[in-house]
Amino acid sequence: MALLMTIEQMHRFLQEVFPEVCNEFTVLALDEDELTVRLNVTQKHLRPGGTVSGPSMFALADVAFYLATLARIGPKALTVTTNCSIDFMRKPAPCNLIGKARVLKLGKALSVGDVMLYSEGMERPVAHANLTYSIPKD
Amino acid sequence: MALLMTIEQMHRFLQEVFPEVCNEFTVLALDEDELTVRLNVTQKHLRPGGTVSGPSMFALADVAFYLATLARIGPKALTVTTNCSIDFMRKPAPCNLIGKARVLKLGKALSVGDVMLYSEGMERPVAHANLTYSIPKD
Amino acid sequence: MALLMTIEQMHRFLQEVFPEVCNEFTVLALDEDELTVRLNVTQKHLRPGGTVSGPSMFALADVAFYLATLARIGPKALTVTTNCSIDFMRKPAPCNLIGKARVLKLGKALSVGDVMLYSEGMERPVAHANLTYSIPKD
Amino acid sequence: MALLMTIEQMHRFLQEVFPEVCNEFTVLALDEDELTVRLNVTQKHLRPGGTVSGPSMFALADVAFYLATLARIGPKALTVTTNCSIDFMRKPAPCNLIGKARVLKLGKALSVGDVMLYSEGMERPVAHANLTYSIPKD
Repeated sequence: MALLMTIEQMHRFLQEVFPEVCNEFTVLALDEDELTVRLNVTQKHLRPGGTVSGPSMFALADVAFYLATLARIGPKALTVTTNCSIDFMRKPAPCNLIGKARVLKLGKALSVGDVMLYSEGMERPVAHANLTYSIPKD
Repeated sequence: MALLMTIEQMHRFLQEVFPEVCNEFTVLALDEDELTVRLNVTQKHLRPGGTVSGPSMFALADVAFYLATLARIGPKALTVTTNCSIDFMRKPAPCNLIGKARVLKLGKALSVGDVMLYSEGMERPVAHANLTYSIPKD
Repeated sequence: MALLMTIEQMHRFLQEVFPEVCNEFTVLALDEDELTVRLNVTQKHLRPGGTVSGPSMFALADVAFYLATLARIGPKALTVTTNCSIDFMRKPAPCNLIGKARVLKLGKALSVGDVMLYSEGMERPVAHANLTYSIPKD
Repeated sequence: MALLMTIEQMHRFLQEVFPEVCNEFTVLALDEDELTVRLNVTQKHLRPGGTVSGPSMFALADVAFYLATLARIGPKALTVTTNCSIDFMRKPAPCNLIGKARVLKLGKALSVGDVMLYSEGMERPVAHANLTYSIPKD
């Protein structure tokens, strides 16, 4: 699927539509197969015991798949999550979290795909999210 | 299933294990069928357009089912989420969010159930979460 | 939500569109809150050890939610499953299986809800399915 | 993860524990990353309109992930599905179905992974299943 947005356009788009959280996320790489986003983990994302919180993992999965979808349909802010299912597999380390998003099916009404989440620098995934987004009609 | 914790014990437990977020949640009601928790929504939970953020909905579902499980097994902090699947059905209003949690199966190793999420005072649910928790061995 | 089909209309509809499986299913009850369907279990649904197979449970959940959706939108055969998530909680007894379906959100494009599955005559559910159907445009 | 079973051992195992369905499935390939299984589609798997039924897709996903797990833990027949979530993305062609299973996390109590489903000979997946299996204690 052809890409309609660059990484820089994504960063500007996040600043416009999600000013309160845009600094938490950095798009690291984008090609036709995969979009890679980093959650810049700070104290507020951590939990006692030295791990990243569940809502922070959800937030990264959601933003990564949102951007992967927008890369293919252009900046339609009203695109919304209809389902997100996350398997939590390993306890994340208390460091940045990386999300690698794939769009498996882009239809007219729905975008379906998944995001694998990793603690930065580690090989084994900490969680696997599957998401469906509803795409607004023009 | 018999209940092993009171609402007051749950609030004290949250203060001990999740001091950074415990004030966001208030347990409103508990019986053998259902646990009701309120997310006390503030500016940080909101998104532009006047709605509650996805990660905030996830957080409420996760805490509500965690407490519903602990009510039946006692305060075992190490109980962890293994899966959470959320259907987002309606845009939440920019007000408190209510979660109603049910434990559908309590096994030795897993607790399985769901949480219906509502904007406070409204009849139709905004989201429906299904969760599985892993229960540590003693 | 007003109901647009009767139980008899559902049985005729199943005979037309799914002649090969329609005799496996019997709609037992229908009101605005819930649709109840029975899987008439025979040898082909069973597995060694005396239990109902996973695909049979999936089939019942899928048919029950399909009919619950059609009850509200009328007989649109092209309505298709986009997601089905099942928590398997208890081993079913080798007898008929009952599915109780609820539509939690009926939108223009998607129908979202769940189905609780029981072994006939037993109180505790054996599985809980959550489904999303895509509704064709007229 | 080291592999404890060969393809031939898997076929014999299926014959022993699932004699009624073992001929429907053929394991095509197995390495440390992926297990590939074919559903040998016959009339009973088809639906009007020329497509493979949902329960047949479920059955393939379930068997493929079961075998991928057993390849790593050995032939423990009592291993059972606790969750299966399927995104249905494209209508399958009326031909054999291929499932490619990955084990993403093998713990002591749970095996977590996914299965991508394809119509044989086609590039784009028709469905994506995520599964969790519970592993019996020895």
